[in-house]
Amino acid sequence: MRPSFARRTEGVMQSYIMSLIEVARRPGMISFATGLPDRRLFDPKGLEAAAERVLESGEAADALQYGATAGFMPLREKIADRCNRELGMHVCAEDVFITNGSQECFDHLGKLFLDPGDGIAVENPGYLGALQSFSVYGPEFIPVDMRDGGPDMSQLTDAFARKPKLYYCVPNHQNPSGTSYSADARKQVAEAADAGSTLVLEDDAYGELGYHGRAGKAIASMTQNAVLTGSISKIISPGMRVGWMVVPEWMRESVSTSLEAACLHAGSFSQRVLDAFLEMHDLDAYLKPIRAEYARKCKLFTDLMADGMPDSMSWTVPDGGMFVLLSSPKGTDAEPIFKTSMERGLVVMPGKPFHIRGGANTIRLNFATAGDEEIKKGMDTLCGVCRELF
Amino acid sequence: MRPSFARRTEGVMQSYIMSLIEVARRPGMISFATGLPDRRLFDPKGLEAAAERVLESGEAADALQYGATAGFMPLREKIADRCNRELGMHVCAEDVFITNGSQECFDHLGKLFLDPGDGIAVENPGYLGALQSFSVYGPEFIPVDMRDGGPDMSQLTDAFARKPKLYYCVPNHQNPSGTSYSADARKQVAEAADAGSTLVLEDDAYGELGYHGRAGKAIASMTQNAVLTGSISKIISPGMRVGWMVVPEWMRESVSTSLEAACLHAGSFSQRVLDAFLEMHDLDAYLKPIRAEYARKCKLFTDLMADGMPDSMSWTVPDGGMFVLLSSPKGTDAEPIFKTSMERGLVVMPGKPFHIRGGANTIRLNFATAGDEEIKKGMDTLCGVCRELF
Repeated sequence: MRPSFARRTEGVMQSYIMSLIEVARRPGMISFATGLPDRRLFDPKGLEAAAERVLESGEAADALQYGATAGFMPLREKIADRCNRELGMHVCAEDVFITNGSQECFDHLGKLFLDPGDGIAVENPGYLGALQSFSVYGPEFIPVDMRDGGPDMSQLTDAFARKPKLYYCVPNHQNPSGTSYSADARKQVAEAADAGSTLVLEDDAYGELGYHGRAGKAIASMTQNAVLTGSISKIISPGMRVGWMVVPEWMRESVSTSLEAACLHAGSFSQRVLDAFLEMHDLDAYLKPIRAEYARKCKLFTDLMADGMPDSMSWTVPDGGMFVLLSSPKGTDAEPIFKTSMERGLVVMPGKPFHIRGGANTIRLNFATAGDEEIKKGMDTLCGVCRELF
Repeated sequence: MRPSFARRTEGVMQSYIMSLIEVARRPGMISFATGLPDRRLFDPKGLEAAAERVLESGEAADALQYGATAGFMPLREKIADRCNRELGMHVCAEDVFITNGSQECFDHLGKLFLDPGDGIAVENPGYLGALQSFSVYGPEFIPVDMRDGGPDMSQLTDAFARKPKLYYCVPNHQNPSGTSYSADARKQVAEAADAGSTLVLEDDAYGELGYHGRAGKAIASMTQNAVLTGSISKIISPGMRVGWMVVPEWMRESVSTSLEAACLHAGSFSQRVLDAFLEMHDLDAYLKPIRAEYARKCKLFTDLMADGMPDSMSWTVPDGGMFVLLSSPKGTDAEPIFKTSMERGLVVMPGKPFHIRGGANTIRLNFATAGDEEIKKGMDTLCGVCRELF
């Protein structure tokens, strides 16, 4: 006989992300589907030099040994410095906890705060991977529709009136829409957090990929009721799995215990290699061509959409990041776009799973993964499919 | 106002492990306290060559990109092969899931199976880090006292009669006692699992460190109601955070979803570097001097105890691994040993936190971390303290 699973196991959302990554890997497939950064922008030589520096130094054995739960201090310092300089925050290294990618932060924050039935306000649409993480803890999701420049403020007010434990948001170049919060929206979210007892979880995975610089200050710079999460996944390497959360002082001890219980600490080897890489490079100089390349691909992508899409389709215009959200007319179902494109060798991601309500007429597109020729060929397929269907 | 933590957050055990690692790092401190392997046995040059191989290959970008949730397939194959050859198992690569160190397995298994109040049978004493992991999910711990050669069988029968969801055990060179299950004990545990609906979690962190070869076949080779967890932390590097669990087929999908929700996947970079390292080395040849060195240090350590300890003290004699469990006379409290040693520059680990009941008269000692001179000096201190106190 088998033991029965815990109740929470039955309620976990499926994310499709990883299974689509598998499909997208099939030879000949073009993918606009996943959240993969452009592999041509990785710097294996630079990371090899960094690994060499770590493993030939007097601290090689430290990089291979167990490390501190909160992470490698010099790396925590660098992250705190950048938060202060770029995001308007006032934090110290002790506020920064390194994790195995920023996805892990969502698991810890859900675990720390969410009892079954507790409210969590989320962007609608919002990042599916985080919604899946939180779903493990059986919360009630309270959707807040996204508009141009941020959440629908009347819905946000109503959502916060229900005293949710958490509000999860991606204010910069959101996944799946690519759009950002206005300065005013950031301020209003911070004020709502200060007025109540809701903790804002500000996911800054794409914040370094603004085509015209930073989209705005961190909400976490305007309220103490916020945790900011970050990651090197979109700018240096997702495979190294280095993320972090910057937490208010009253959370430090609980976060530390949660990390220790779940994994002792994030990989010291990856952290040290990353730290050496950051010592050896000026991050702004390193990011400049990456931002420019994503901006160029975004323009190529959306120009092709403007040329080839039927008038009935609409889409968001990102100011950074990797994603465009495509919509078929209100009330229609976009799933046939996904199915027909797949038959023709193009994988796209249905937008519905990113929504707590609605969204059946949306498709998420990633313009970062594919090369120019694939973008042209894939967009030719996609526009053809859309013209046939809508 | 702050949001309140979830109920589970209040019930988490403190583990002391990471805080003792911090204390042990203070200059001049000798440590017998933590579970750190001997840093002199790491192979930074070999890992540097492996990293070079990965980052100069045509697959460099794959190592830096997002990877599959279950892990890097060639590494999963190597682990399955070794389980079959060394542990008597019959598993395939698809049964193997790579994690960020094997500690992460305990978090996932607790999350997947434990509702608040569910039973989990555990060794008494048992590995504190795993107990802490499980405690997050609010189970009832059912202690089974450890004897020479395995658990007290009458207590094990009583424990299984209460139909716990899980039985967590370390059959090889246990942490904290260093001792192993007899062949008969393994068989009885497997039979008990088959007869009921309790899943055995067999933690094999130390299985490769048997001084006289493998201590025995895996319990997971004798029943389908078992998950085996393993790790490179004690033999190659804890800082790389590569562990794994080998699960029965009916668990695959749930484990995959749990991993995806919590962290997408374990680090591809570390996995690929490890895989290259294993391609470049014969693991048995690599392990031979490591086992010999730990056996030598164990003998040095226990010989010094035999010479210097008062007759009133007793201790386990390990057949592998890194630990000795020291006991003061029944009914006494060993905590003064911890406190007095610390004042004299030696950190040891109280044994009580490893116990669900009793154990106040025990101290866990690690003979792996320290060098010979530190072992001699530290043991001089420790024996002196014990002679004064008992």
